[in-house]
Amino acid sequence: MRQAGRYLPEYRELRKAHSFVEMCTQPDLAVEVSLQPFRRFAFDAVVVFYDILFLVEAMGAPLKFTDDGPVFLEPVRGDDDLKALHEPDVRSADPQKGTGAVCETIRRLRETLPPEIAVLGFAGAPFTLAAYLVEGSFQRSGDRIRRLINEEPAFVRSLLERLARATAEYLCAQVEAGADAVQLFDTWAGVLGRDAFREFALPYESTVLGAVATKGVHSILYVNGCSHIVEDMGTSGATVLSLDWRQDLGEARRRVGQGIALQGNLDPAALFQPPEGVRRSALCSMEGLRGDPGHIFNLGHGILPETPIASVEALLEAVRGESR
Amino acid sequence: MRQAGRYLPEYRELRKAHSFVEMCTQPDLAVEVSLQPFRRFAFDAVVVFYDILFLVEAMGAPLKFTDDGPVFLEPVRGDDDLKALHEPDVRSADPQKGTGAVCETIRRLRETLPPEIAVLGFAGAPFTLAAYLVEGSFQRSGDRIRRLINEEPAFVRSLLERLARATAEYLCAQVEAGADAVQLFDTWAGVLGRDAFREFALPYESTVLGAVATKGVHSILYVNGCSHIVEDMGTSGATVLSLDWRQDLGEARRRVGQGIALQGNLDPAALFQPPEGVRRSALCSMEGLRGDPGHIFNLGHGILPETPIASVEALLEAVRGESR
Repeated sequence: MRQAGRYLPEYRELRKAHSFVEMCTQPDLAVEVSLQPFRRFAFDAVVVFYDILFLVEAMGAPLKFTDDGPVFLEPVRGDDDLKALHEPDVRSADPQKGTGAVCETIRRLRETLPPEIAVLGFAGAPFTLAAYLVEGSFQRSGDRIRRLINEEPAFVRSLLERLARATAEYLCAQVEAGADAVQLFDTWAGVLGRDAFREFALPYESTVLGAVATKGVHSILYVNGCSHIVEDMGTSGATVLSLDWRQDLGEARRRVGQGIALQGNLDPAALFQPPEGVRRSALCSMEGLRGDPGHIFNLGHGILPETPIASVEALLEAVRGESR
Repeated sequence: MRQAGRYLPEYRELRKAHSFVEMCTQPDLAVEVSLQPFRRFAFDAVVVFYDILFLVEAMGAPLKFTDDGPVFLEPVRGDDDLKALHEPDVRSADPQKGTGAVCETIRRLRETLPPEIAVLGFAGAPFTLAAYLVEGSFQRSGDRIRRLINEEPAFVRSLLERLARATAEYLCAQVEAGADAVQLFDTWAGVLGRDAFREFALPYESTVLGAVATKGVHSILYVNGCSHIVEDMGTSGATVLSLDWRQDLGEARRRVGQGIALQGNLDPAALFQPPEGVRRSALCSMEGLRGDPGHIFNLGHGILPETPIASVEALLEAVRGESR
């Protein structure tokens, strides 16, 4: 999950002088923002600061970040829209043309940080990117993309194939730049029923994760609202599954078996309790995997903007006390 | 699930001359709209046309229906907002003051329809109503209500208790007016993790469902995104669980056991396939409960506005063929 953000005063300070896009795409700024949470909390890993949608912008889809979230100004809904997309130049340093900025940020982070601190790259998974492109802006249950996979399945498959190729190349470039592991966010894929997930999300996740595997690094797959598809996620080729706050960790272990790490799953909203409550919730989240060496503690979704710093501190105290 | 709506040309025709609110709150219109799908498709039951949020408006919360959905103009987030809410007059015929309109519509439907056709009333469950009130307008994952249950749990409990009392009285009034069964929509409760669901949704569902049970009618509980809480739903006191398109019906039966009916669960987006695909998806949805007498076929969420009529016809043909 993203570590940096508006809950940090040092982030808000920098944000006064720079747009979100600048902070993602100018490596000087992105390195600084990526390091802010590490300096404050000494996390085990540093997640590079960037956005999953820049890859799609680099394929020719005009993108705007608004107060209500990102918007694709020309949603992709037909063959002509699809033809207008081109292969991204994942290594170009020009943010208008490619996603080289994230590689440069990763390179500098890897040079700066001690070797025992992992640098994590990430990407959106093909279904989630397709959902953003088709919907234009985030809708609560993805009605439009779910409709389109029923109405025009061949069109959606073409779009997914192109996004899968681009995403595979993109994550491989991140690994070549120095990422020690990568996260694949299929945030929206939980809106799909199991059969649709198996047809329109899982195979494309597998394409991307297979390419990452050839680079010899770990890969982490996240789906929000994953309780109905945990077993399928286990077959994706990811070496780690990242679970949301509604999926019990111990139950997930029973469903996917051994041989795969599990990451998660505290509800970010739990950080709005007093510190004692935060500690209790953290311990409760970890309970089902007590003694399981394949557990990476994490939130079950992105940290919320107004989260109190004291809560993050209480959380880390609880988790580190438990991990000793 | 709502049966009437924009997918029907006769609905769109009536809608040209009347607002959505008028069509819900003027019994002449509401009876007509409720009967439109029955006349066309001869469903086994008629769902009264109304909206779950009018009850909360009748408690003093100003409500507006916009193109983007309903909005509470003065979100309820503190004790003063809570004090401003009053008990609703669930029997008042004045739509500004109470929800008597829905009772009158139910009364007329019950008088009009043959006795073998059930008339279904409905309400939003306390957590879902609270989520709407706190968020103001629909947000994708209910961040604000999830935050508030952590930050101000006592406040949220007070709000839920008041909503539970009002909803219980409201549904009892619908049964007294002639509803043969009622649906309780806890649409948003799937955003809660299991522990939070048990604390902030389930007990209030049970209060309402307990009151309905004293009237001797069946009650149907729906939660969208319910895969992690199916067992808990089974303990709510509902006599029927209505499941969304991500929850396999056969698996739900194994989890809740016998003695409770299951309703669902075709993805409304599946109705955008050609008729042959619709038939296949319908059969596939029913497969897990083949031969199970406690299955009520339904969609897994509300029908989408542009759904082709031919798809509904193909669906009914498949379901009726199977039920013979």
